[in-house]
Amino acid sequence: MNAEILSIGTELLLGDILNTNSQFLSKELAKIGISVYYHTSVGDNPDRLLNALKVAFDRSDIVITTGGLGPTEDDLTKQIISKYFIRELILHEDSLKNIQNICKAHNIALTKNLEKQAYILRGATVLKNTNGSAPGCIIEENDKILIMLPGPPNEATNMYKNEVLPYLSTKSKYMYISKTVHISGIGESAAESLVKDIIDKQTNPTIAPYAKMAEVVFRITAKAKSNEEANKLINPIVEIMYDRFGHNIIGQDGITLEECIVKLLKDKGLTLSCAESCTGGMVTSKLVNFPGASAVLVEGVVAYSNTSKINRLGVKLETLEEYGAVSKQVAAQMAEGIAKASNSDIGISTTGIAGPNSNDTLKPVGLVYVGIYFNNTTIVKEFNFLGDREKIRTLTTLRLLDTLRRELLKW
Amino acid sequence: MNAEILSIGTELLLGDILNTNSQFLSKELAKIGISVYYHTSVGDNPDRLLNALKVAFDRSDIVITTGGLGPTEDDLTKQIISKYFIRELILHEDSLKNIQNICKAHNIALTKNLEKQAYILRGATVLKNTNGSAPGCIIEENDKILIMLPGPPNEATNMYKNEVLPYLSTKSKYMYISKTVHISGIGESAAESLVKDIIDKQTNPTIAPYAKMAEVVFRITAKAKSNEEANKLINPIVEIMYDRFGHNIIGQDGITLEECIVKLLKDKGLTLSCAESCTGGMVTSKLVNFPGASAVLVEGVVAYSNTSKINRLGVKLETLEEYGAVSKQVAAQMAEGIAKASNSDIGISTTGIAGPNSNDTLKPVGLVYVGIYFNNTTIVKEFNFLGDREKIRTLTTLRLLDTLRRELLKW
Repeated sequence: MNAEILSIGTELLLGDILNTNSQFLSKELAKIGISVYYHTSVGDNPDRLLNALKVAFDRSDIVITTGGLGPTEDDLTKQIISKYFIRELILHEDSLKNIQNICKAHNIALTKNLEKQAYILRGATVLKNTNGSAPGCIIEENDKILIMLPGPPNEATNMYKNEVLPYLSTKSKYMYISKTVHISGIGESAAESLVKDIIDKQTNPTIAPYAKMAEVVFRITAKAKSNEEANKLINPIVEIMYDRFGHNIIGQDGITLEECIVKLLKDKGLTLSCAESCTGGMVTSKLVNFPGASAVLVEGVVAYSNTSKINRLGVKLETLEEYGAVSKQVAAQMAEGIAKASNSDIGISTTGIAGPNSNDTLKPVGLVYVGIYFNNTTIVKEFNFLGDREKIRTLTTLRLLDTLRRELLKW
Repeated sequence: MNAEILSIGTELLLGDILNTNSQFLSKELAKIGISVYYHTSVGDNPDRLLNALKVAFDRSDIVITTGGLGPTEDDLTKQIISKYFIRELILHEDSLKNIQNICKAHNIALTKNLEKQAYILRGATVLKNTNGSAPGCIIEENDKILIMLPGPPNEATNMYKNEVLPYLSTKSKYMYISKTVHISGIGESAAESLVKDIIDKQTNPTIAPYAKMAEVVFRITAKAKSNEEANKLINPIVEIMYDRFGHNIIGQDGITLEECIVKLLKDKGLTLSCAESCTGGMVTSKLVNFPGASAVLVEGVVAYSNTSKINRLGVKLETLEEYGAVSKQVAAQMAEGIAKASNSDIGISTTGIAGPNSNDTLKPVGLVYVGIYFNNTTIVKEFNFLGDREKIRTLTTLRLLDTLRRELLKW
């Protein structure tokens, strides 16, 4: 069985709100083995809504609508669906009682508009709204299923979990279980080619890559009748990935670089400090994202000015004058300087030209050096990033943290 | 003219990512008077993509696709569109050069897969990608327009602003010109009620509020035939807002707190340094977001440990022992300490409990102190924020910067 999600509301087409309902429902349907083939959004317009319904039922077995069930003039989902199925709207007493109770609780008058929400298509199964006044419903006709949910995300998600999930679970024989493997330091295309043989061979589980900034994620999805059966299908693929990608693998199932690094530091009993120039605090802030960071992070210094680089990090004036602030030499002194000044085991540093303009006309925007100091040794890496200021700063942060992760695996 | 946004990628239908491109494009198209009637998302499947294209061109004048232009096997947008329009794909030399440069910068081999991205439909206008490797394009045929954009949001948004917006602006008779007024320190509902009389009266320009974190934005949109005509409609409304909101107004047209602060510091010839605990670099990083920050920002210290607070910022051990790190007294000493240690005019500080757990069981998660030191005077503010770790850290950053902005207006 396949499904289409039809989101109804002009506010979506104006960009006033993000369509989080479609994401939520897609995730949920994938879990119970129902493939979503299309998302459609349409405004509160009778003709276009009717058109979208026809298109959806021509190509999909299940259509789930969200939105347009409320009390205002522009809420017309039920009216149009009633026309499409040629079924009249009739009053649903329990839903009317729910609306009366809500009015009493909020001390507002029960108007005709509010009452309108209690009308349901003849022959439909009513779905109770525990978070609001508009009920949903399910209609089965000619091997097609229509499910109507309200638009507000807290109402739609609750109604799905309480009423729709139990109903749809009986329609699907299988569950779909996914694991993700997170990979850095290698592009999407190169990563895919390293496991192309198993991607091409597999039908269950399926293996699909997608790219995030400075990271490639493989999603391995098994169709199975139990969790145990799914793991038996997925785990051998994960093992092959570890064999082939080795230290390029950050970890599994939504792990972040900061989590990986904080855990490695804790395991090894090491402390860390950061000296940042072009990233301006982004490296430290990213590490602090992970709640356990305080145990291993001693301090961070954003040494934006040369004075600060000299006074706080012990960078030598001669080095700044000879090589400039954006140089291999300064990156090295910053990393060593912050480690010593803060009495940490490890010091890491960034210096680069994030743009939009280069202050030093001889050095290009995007030129970045990152440094790592540990055990009397300093490693410096040079990068030439392309992109805007934000992208260059983010890439610098991610590549420094990934370089640190790889070094930590050796120590 | 009306438009449809066709988002391509199985990751959307699995719910792996939120469709932010559709929201961005819808907002942008509304501004230039192009109505969006449908959003469609479809996976990386040739037949269904072809079906979605046909449906879209049957009902819409302009179709904007996002996604499926990348190097991997499942990126097949161009192949399918080439089939739909019966136009072959030909190599675009400039795009190939861009890909070669990116490969060089990242030190990766130029594979056939990567080269694939440089192929463009015959007769198309090529859209340059300043944030990535896959170019976009525009095709005009039989009064219909197709615009192809890449999937990654930073690539799609830049390409839209740089290349698509100037192109589409010529297609629309009216212009829709908007100004935004950014307000802090007052909630959305209270802000709306302060200008309800003018909101209710206006039809052109329209006035609509929306809430961001710790900020309310009013968008004032005029339909006009020229910029001048639009300004005549908008400016009186903006003046009324300045009258009523006073110093609660941060500024206009996408201004950020960091831009406002950096400009105020430059005007007044003042320098700033930051001492952060719970925000872990977020305050400094946010200031560095604005390109001119280096002229006024001397340094930032993330003093996560007590040792670092003592050594780097001169916080007194007795104060830490008596009041704890999360206290009014420590916030004050941190702000004064960083100003003196860095020889800056102004020092600002944060200390608080961002969660998920409180280390100090007597103090609740969400308790935060921010400090500002200037001219031998220290101001400390206490906040009790609700939310998760990320939200508490972000609110701390925004409220500190807004407090600083208000102080700077007085000095």
